[in-house]
Amino acid sequence: MVRKILIVGAGKSTSYLLDYLLEKSDTENLKVIIGDLDTSSISGKIKSHPNCAVRTLDIFREEERISAIQEVDLVISMLPARFHIKIAEDCLTYKKHLVTASYISPELKKLNEKVIESGLVFMNEIGLDPGIDHMSAMQVIDRIRDNGGKILLFESFCGGLVAPEFDNNLWNYKFTWNPRNVVLAGQGGTAKFIQEGTYKYIPYHKLFRRTEFFEVEDFGKFEGYANRDSLNYREAYGLQDALTIYRGTMRRVGFSKAWNIFVQLGATDDTYTIENSENMTYREFINLFLPYSPTDSVELKLRHYLKIDQDDSTWEKLVELNLFDKSKKIGITDATPAQALQKILEDKWTLGDKEKDMIVMYHKFGYELNGEKKQIDSKLVVIGEDRIHTAMAKTVGLPVAIAALKILNGQITTPGVQIPISKEVYQPILKELESLDINFKEYEVPYPGYNPDSVAS
Amino acid sequence: MVRKILIVGAGKSTSYLLDYLLEKSDTENLKVIIGDLDTSSISGKIKSHPNCAVRTLDIFREEERISAIQEVDLVISMLPARFHIKIAEDCLTYKKHLVTASYISPELKKLNEKVIESGLVFMNEIGLDPGIDHMSAMQVIDRIRDNGGKILLFESFCGGLVAPEFDNNLWNYKFTWNPRNVVLAGQGGTAKFIQEGTYKYIPYHKLFRRTEFFEVEDFGKFEGYANRDSLNYREAYGLQDALTIYRGTMRRVGFSKAWNIFVQLGATDDTYTIENSENMTYREFINLFLPYSPTDSVELKLRHYLKIDQDDSTWEKLVELNLFDKSKKIGITDATPAQALQKILEDKWTLGDKEKDMIVMYHKFGYELNGEKKQIDSKLVVIGEDRIHTAMAKTVGLPVAIAALKILNGQITTPGVQIPISKEVYQPILKELESLDINFKEYEVPYPGYNPDSVAS
Repeated sequence: MVRKILIVGAGKSTSYLLDYLLEKSDTENLKVIIGDLDTSSISGKIKSHPNCAVRTLDIFREEERISAIQEVDLVISMLPARFHIKIAEDCLTYKKHLVTASYISPELKKLNEKVIESGLVFMNEIGLDPGIDHMSAMQVIDRIRDNGGKILLFESFCGGLVAPEFDNNLWNYKFTWNPRNVVLAGQGGTAKFIQEGTYKYIPYHKLFRRTEFFEVEDFGKFEGYANRDSLNYREAYGLQDALTIYRGTMRRVGFSKAWNIFVQLGATDDTYTIENSENMTYREFINLFLPYSPTDSVELKLRHYLKIDQDDSTWEKLVELNLFDKSKKIGITDATPAQALQKILEDKWTLGDKEKDMIVMYHKFGYELNGEKKQIDSKLVVIGEDRIHTAMAKTVGLPVAIAALKILNGQITTPGVQIPISKEVYQPILKELESLDINFKEYEVPYPGYNPDSVAS
Repeated sequence: MVRKILIVGAGKSTSYLLDYLLEKSDTENLKVIIGDLDTSSISGKIKSHPNCAVRTLDIFREEERISAIQEVDLVISMLPARFHIKIAEDCLTYKKHLVTASYISPELKKLNEKVIESGLVFMNEIGLDPGIDHMSAMQVIDRIRDNGGKILLFESFCGGLVAPEFDNNLWNYKFTWNPRNVVLAGQGGTAKFIQEGTYKYIPYHKLFRRTEFFEVEDFGKFEGYANRDSLNYREAYGLQDALTIYRGTMRRVGFSKAWNIFVQLGATDDTYTIENSENMTYREFINLFLPYSPTDSVELKLRHYLKIDQDDSTWEKLVELNLFDKSKKIGITDATPAQALQKILEDKWTLGDKEKDMIVMYHKFGYELNGEKKQIDSKLVVIGEDRIHTAMAKTVGLPVAIAALKILNGQITTPGVQIPISKEVYQPILKELESLDINFKEYEVPYPGYNPDSVAS
């Protein structure tokens, strides 16, 4: 019998997801239906696949949405997270499984009991971050525990970057995902984490100055800044007794120091619009955030304001962005500072047609076993194939696709609104990801062994 | 015929307000009714005044509120601004005038048409700031215009401080008003202003490093940081063509530099609660915001993090607050950082029983007259009498009281939801305030005369 999968939203991240499901569609007896408001961006190769159907779908039209969901066995929603709830409610009504790569919203969580009663699997956070991070972390955590170890420290960092061979600007960064999220990263709340048993709080304006450093074999050095939500998974992971829990985002070393200049200026603010932004030059935009002077240049005012030394190489990063240009214009009406800054960055940070992206993930697991303190570092690097088959699309799309098929095949059966942290889920998925070249490498390293009697704690 | 005034809310700021009205109650034929949830803090001297009545009033009990409003001719609301709207709606229904010292809320503004139709005066923002600032500024602005001048620049700063003879801590600051507002000052939005025709934006984390300095004769030097709302009164004041509009808050020099340490740490954050705040020491509180170290002291970590030199006198200000104390405890359950910080500050910054406060206001008016650029600086200093009769209570309460009486006496008649910027309102009130020793001094000074062709603009 044919099993039908509805994929809602055919955005950037669906290339590998579609390839995987269509490739298996004959042997697995699958029919893939893509529903999107705008189907024009879907490639001819996909559209013409015999096991694929494309339909225009506006999820705000109830009839259209319900009829699309009713006729399938499982729904994959690749829409922005805020749209999932409508689809989830219909999936519950018409008894369909659901897979998303997004964080579980409070509304979605509320459906859990009814989803369990209906015997349905609503699998969420099964992309890259969240997704592969959950699965790969829980695999090591469970293994340490199964061996009788006790977790002392868990740190987890992930970043979407540009592949080394195309890493050719001074920021060592290009947009490989939604640029707006990059500009707004870290806003909306204080970063909280726990370090050697002490709570730590970092306000947004200090976030990019409190970085950690990482070395990844063959790929060099990286830095990481804290996520807001380090403590969110403390209970889910069973880490209530861990002394250190820290999650964050990875960049190449030096990015954060330079990005901090925008944060300090207020140029990442998205809460108000600028007057006359359309005809404003890049230089005038930066000058909005600097003290008035009848004589001093924007350059000197900025150096003085943020205490940037004459020989600080960060300066060249600003110049590379044409930040002081007197002719380039923002060109957006009523832009917020964040929107104006995004425009400036897109001029320079857009991934070229032939360029590849790179995903890096780094976990640290500190633990105690037989009275001895140890640490395992686990690292993942994935390089994209091209601008469509990006490492981001691969690492987000493949776990979603694998999970969907395993749910249909009855290999993942525990019902409920869930994230992939149980062995039933992560073991088969990680195993298959390995065969698709998504491989973690593990390293045993010394555990730093902090002094618990420190005056600083 | 007796005219009845209902004063809702008998808080800190009502001492002069009550004294003024009761003193005139015989000659003006007034009956003052004080309505408050808790009437116990009202002094016996007030309570026993023959023209005063005190009643328990819960404004959330509709019947109680309506009956209190129905029986008077005018209502003065000294409640927090968010409570005015209920009272205003009743005032409209039962045709009573209303006076408040608070900012006009959007809901209140919506009543304007109906208030005009009813021929009522709803006078708002008639305290100190807002209040005396509006009136004193408009008096000079109107005078310059009436003489044919054109306003180029308007700056206005105000601060509530401690009187010089009791100014005996290193911050040169004590709480003379709501401490919570002082801790949260500047939060909730980017400061916006306009300087020599250029818009300027200051994010919260830079607000206390972008200060201006002022000299007040006989009182020495002050500094000012920007308010969020500099441009709010641009149209009301008729300053659409002014090149510079800047409003702010005054402190003694050095306050902002030290306060910025709390801002940088994130210790003024009011958006989340701290775990275990009750038993946390002051030292542990500060350490929440500093990087973890197994060996380094809180002191060194703070100096390094915020680059505070060994000989920076700001450090002594922190020590004076017992910030590094290992035994003093926050003592508040589930405190936000802002609440914890307020507790620390209240230990040291509470105005003593015999101590006096001080109000300072400073306006600058730059203008062009007959092709010549000129400037007038206008300054006000008011010193409190004691802890009840504070300069704050005087400068907030007297304009409210005077306005109320002038409305009752038909000297202020233009109806509507308004602020005191018309001559009809500010002229008689400022004149009477002068007789009560609230006096601005004016100084003609050179206009700085910026170069409009500057590379920086």
